Order: sequence, then C-alpha cells, then structure tokens
Amino acid sequence: MAGQIRDYTDSEARAALPCKWGAVPEGTLPAWVAEMDYAPASAITAALNGAVGRGVLGYPPFGGHGPDGDLEAAFRGFAERHWGWSLPAGATTVVGDVVDGIRLALDHLCPPGPVVIPLPCYPPFREVVELAGREARYVALDPDAERAELDLDAVRTAFDEGARTLLLCSPHNPWGRVFTRAELEAVRDLAAQYDARVVADEIHAPLVLPGGAKFTPYLDVDPTGLSVLSHSKSFNTPGLKCAQLISLRDDDREAIAALPHSANHGWSVLGMIAGVAAWRDSDLWLLALRQRLDVLREDLSEHLAERLPQARMRPLEATYLAWIDLRAYGVSDPATLGRKHGVRVAPGHDYQPGLDGHVRLNIATSADRLEEIVTRLAKALTA
Amino acid sequence: MAGQIRDYTDSEARAALPCKWGAVPEGTLPAWVAEMDYAPASAITAALNGAVGRGVLGYPPFGGHGPDGDLEAAFRGFAERHWGWSLPAGATTVVGDVVDGIRLALDHLCPPGPVVIPLPCYPPFREVVELAGREARYVALDPDAERAELDLDAVRTAFDEGARTLLLCSPHNPWGRVFTRAELEAVRDLAAQYDARVVADEIHAPLVLPGGAKFTPYLDVDPTGLSVLSHSKSFNTPGLKCAQLISLRDDDREAIAALPHSANHGWSVLGMIAGVAAWRDSDLWLLALRQRLDVLREDLSEHLAERLPQARMRPLEATYLAWIDLRAYGVSDPATLGRKHGVRVAPGHDYQPGLDGHVRLNIATSADRLEEIVTRLAKALTA
Repeated sequence: MAGQIRDYTDSEARAALPCKWGAVPEGTLPAWVAEMDYAPASAITAALNGAVGRGVLGYPPFGGHGPDGDLEAAFRGFAERHWGWSLPAGATTVVGDVVDGIRLALDHLCPPGPVVIPLPCYPPFREVVELAGREARYVALDPDAERAELDLDAVRTAFDEGARTLLLCSPHNPWGRVFTRAELEAVRDLAAQYDARVVADEIHAPLVLPGGAKFTPYLDVDPTGLSVLSHSKSFNTPGLKCAQLISLRDDDREAIAALPHSANHGWSVLGMIAGVAAWRDSDLWLLALRQRLDVLREDLSEHLAERLPQARMRPLEATYLAWIDLRAYGVSDPATLGRKHGVRVAPGHDYQPGLDGHVRLNIATSADRLEEIVTRLAKALTA
Repeated sequence: MAGQIRDYTDSEARAALPCKWGAVPEGTLPAWVAEMDYAPASAITAALNGAVGRGVLGYPPFGGHGPDGDLEAAFRGFAERHWGWSLPAGATTVVGDVVDGIRLALDHLCPPGPVVIPLPCYPPFREVVELAGREARYVALDPDAERAELDLDAVRTAFDEGARTLLLCSPHNPWGRVFTRAELEAVRDLAAQYDARVVADEIHAPLVLPGGAKFTPYLDVDPTGLSVLSHSKSFNTPGLKCAQLISLRDDDREAIAALPHSANHGWSVLGMIAGVAAWRDSDLWLLALRQRLDVLREDLSEHLAERLPQARMRPLEATYLAWIDLRAYGVSDPATLGRKHGVRVAPGHDYQPGLDGHVRLNIATSADRLEEIVTRLAKALTA
C-alpha cells in the first residue's frame, strides 16, 4: 500500500512544485509551504489527462456540478466513508479555495463584528479578515502549554467585546491538533450563547494520522456553523483552485443563491475534475499517504531527539506540518538562520507575529530529505 | 491555415464545454456564453499534457513567473508581434481572471468615487462594481445610433458628478467595436482633466477581425491607465483561471507588491501554462481562428438578411459575439422565446436592463450550426 506513494526526485519535484521548490536555490531543501514531494494519486492524473484530451478547458458549469461527475456527490461519499457523516444534498457550494470560502462567508453569511482568530494561525486568516474589512481578535495559545487547546475564556472575552465570528482551523494548522467532539461541543455552546458563528477550515480533515485521533466535522456538532474544505491539501493539487463551502442552513443557501456570479467564480474546471477523482477514487492512495506520514512523524521525533534535543514538539495528530518550539536555542528567527544552512522552513513569526523561536516544518518529503532537513536545521542552530 | 480550426461534434462540444453546452437540453443549440465550439490550439493541449504528466498541480509560483516559461515574457512577445507594442518588463501582474483584475484595480489602485460603465456591458462589470462597494454611473449607447461610440459628454457629466474611474471594454463586448486611436485619445484627454483613471478590459484584443480595424492598447495612448487581459477568451480556456493586470505606473506596482497574498491568488498553475503556450506558440492557430470568424461573420449577415431581414446589426469589428437589434419584431425578450424553439442566445436585458428586443449571438461554432441558430431564432420571432 505504501508503495502507492511515489517520491519525486529533486528534479521531478522542482518541475512539479514550482512554488515550493522554485522559491529555493538549487541545493536548498524546501520544507516550508504546504505541498508534498509525492506524485499525485493515479486517479487524479488519469482524470486530468482525460479532461485535457477532451478539451475540457471551458467555464466550469454554473452551480458547481459536473463535468466529470458531481463534485458534491463525490464529497458526500467521502464524508460518509471516512467520517460516518451523512451530509444532505445541496449543502455544498464550490469556491476557488479555502480563503475564497472564508471571504465569502465573512462578506455574505457571518454576523457583523470582529472575528476571533486563535494563534498561531495560517497567515491568510489574518489577511482575509483584514481584506474583508473586519477587525481581528486574537486568542494566543500559551507556547508552554502541554496540550494545544482553545482558550475558551479568551474567546468568551472577545465575544463579550463584540466579536461574533470564530475562525477555527480544525484539524489545526499549525497546532497539529485534532479537536475532540467534546472540545467542539464546548465551542458550539459558547458560540450559541452569543449568537456567534463558527467558520471551520477543515482542509486538513483527511490528514488525521493513525493513533487514535478522530476527525469530527464541526457541522456534525453545530449545524449552524460553516465549513470550508478542499481535496487540494490532502491530494496535493493546490494549484488547481477548487474548494467547497458547506452550510446546513437554508438562509445561507438562499443568500449564496442570490449572489451575483462575480461574487463566487474562483474555481477552475480542472480543479473540479481533480476533486471528483480525489474524493471518489483515491481512498487507497490517501491511506498509503497517512501511513507514510505516520512513519515520517516518528522519524522526525527521532531526528529531533538526536540532533535538536532541546526542541519541543506536541504530538502531531494531523497534517504533515510540524510546529516546533526551538526557543531553547536562543534564536529569534530560526527559519532565516536555516536558509543560510541550506534548509527552508516556515518562520513561526508568519503564524504568530512576535512569537520567537518557532518554525513550521513540512515533513511530507522523502525520509532521506527529512533527515537532512533536521540535520541542517540543527547545524544552523548549534553551529 | 483554416484547417487549424477543428470543429467539435455536438457530443465533443458537450464533453468539452460543460457550461455552454451543459446548460442547454439535448437538441438545443447554445449560442450564449462566450466559448467557442473548437478544439484548442495544439500547443496548449501539448503544454497541458506535459504539465499533468510531470504532476504540475501545486501552487503557482508567487509573483507569477514560470513554471513553464515566463508568462509576462510570452505576453510581451505577443504584444510586440501583433500590436507593435513594446511593453516594459515588470508591468504585468498575474490575476485569476478579468473580473478579479478589475476588482483588484477598484479596491487598491483606482481613486474613490463612482465608476462609469458604458452600456450595454458585460454583466459582471455591474456586479463587480457593486461588490467593490462602488456606485455605478451608466452611460448608455443609443440603440438607434449608426455607429457604436462612447458618449463623451455623458462621461464628462458623470465625472462632473464625482465619478473618477471609467470601466472601458476595448475592443467592446457586446458592441463589437474596435476603438480607434483617436477615440481612445479623446477618452484619455477627458480622464486627464478629472484625474480619473481608465480601466480597460482588453480581453478581446486578439480577436480583431480582418477588414481594417486595428487594436490600440489603451496604455499605449494613456500610460496612466490600467489594462486587464487574458488569453482565455481568444484561446478558449476560460475554465483555467489566468489573466494579467497591466500598469506602467510605479505607484501601482508598489501598491500591488505590498498587497497580502490573499488579495490576489486566483490563478491556477495550469492556466499560466496554457497562457504561455497561447501567447508564445499559437499565432497560426489564432490567425486561422480570425479567418474562420471572418467567414462566419459574413455568413451571419447573409442568414439574417434572408431570415430576419428586419434585424439590425452594426459591423462586427472584433469578438465572436454579435449584438443584434430585433426590436422590429416586437418581442421584448427574444432570447427566452428562442429557447422554446431550440436555440439559446444571450438576452439583451443581461447587458442593459430595460433594453428590449436585443440579443447577443455567439457565432463561434460550425457554419451549419450558425445557420440553424439563425433559422430557429427566426422561427421563434416570426412564427
């Protein structure tokens, strides 16, 4: 099964991933942006080859169905098989990507008022809230906390001060946490007290790693919430533009249906086609991927223990993005230092301005490269 | 040369163009949305096949260069060869599509105040101005005018009343006009008097048809303007998401460079790859296309003269979208009537609310289908 995951060689990766690999000089190992150094699932390649062959380069159908099967049906099947979640038909809206979905939610579906963002966060969360003309209320994780948990008291304070939307990444990037049903129920109960809405970015849901953590769809706990999801992260197709906004509320559906076409037109036809192949036909590839990431997660722990023993890292329950606390090495910005030593990781400052000594490290590469990435980072920090 | 244009059969068109053909019932001929019933240029298909084969499905490179050659360089070569326009390097910014480019210009580059939109117009112009929170000032073309010209007195009045942006489609859809250099100079002079900016949607520029009309890039006349362009319309790839915003002003470039990533991230990596192949490697296909459209334009005139002799149509100087005045037949909405007779054209109301008796008819299909489209429309109007 693990054989389903084919590693790119360096030159293949450089050709396939122009952002991740194209942004680093030859010889530098890229472990920054969230892309994987693996060939895509064969069902996706086959679907795209077929589409290009038939000339499917025109407008995606309005409303987001077809042309190569129904994206919503494919996703509903995936949700049922993987999470036991029976999503009713008509609950999804195609959008360009997760950020577009959040923007649509903020502009047209969420109540007015500031937006609560737990920190550290995916940097576009802060950008999109500002672009939407909303104030942000940040709720920072204690970097010394044993477990990464949402500070509900701080969220309550933000709601007391007028915030009415919570932007929750679940599973969380870069925390690596899979929130339990009980945790999500507590979020729901708090939001309900304030008539606040939760917008859940669930793009990492298919990437819950073996070991007990279990993904709970936020809307399965709180049918008044909003979810944004895409196959693009788990199936390595972020360049194709296609995600889904999910709501169970009739008023949301009516509001979305009333929007002009220009308010939501960001998906590509080939992104949709890849999405159908991902959600419907790529379960075995995804299983193999999670097994591979499980091994790499273990490798990372060993490499850190050996080479950066003062690094601190909470258990990585989901995603291939490790959030590593390197404060013990006394370097404000380990990522910049790492670039001088031939490795590019993402700087912690991008996820929480002012938080020193953290990096986000992308483990989705070959075992050899991962070892070398940690080795170079250790050299940078201990030279 | 004309042999370079391969007509789709009905079933091929239905598979390739899920919006245009998927939205009509079997048996109905679609002549509405701006897509062509032709196979794409072989260079585009080859580039996309190559990209899918190499797994190029990841994030497009930040900044909009590569991965398959430089999109800007490809466009600059096209502009030089086709329009004698020497565009300096660094003037283009990749955006998702023309509407995204206009939105970016309105949100971040244009002066505050209402936006002037000549009517009839591409419907998303009205949508995007409203979504950007701007007021629109409409300047309507006299439907009885012999020649479709911009009413500069009305534009001046709008500027007098506070408007500071003009959204100009050039060549114009649906007017079918290619504005002369003298006309564009008059627009520039008027805008300059008011410190207003012109945003030129030049997506139809490669589709100027034989017969004397010549495209003048608006920025070649007014270096303070903004232009939005894409290969997607002329090369039939609108489903792939990729366009270019062009400015010659340093302050625009600085403002764009300072934007967060989330403010401009709508293009797909395969859209870029198609764009390079279109601008750089598809001149012969484009030449054959214009020859084909020239013939179809003539066919349309003949069919109208024979079957709908009271139809009025100004010369189609560019685009494959004919704007037809059918008021003489006394039907408010000929498009809706047409659908009952097996043909879907675009209703004039979409382009100018309240303007009765007009349709936009897409001629980019086979000669046989075009004849049948006019035949069915004539049956609808004269039955």
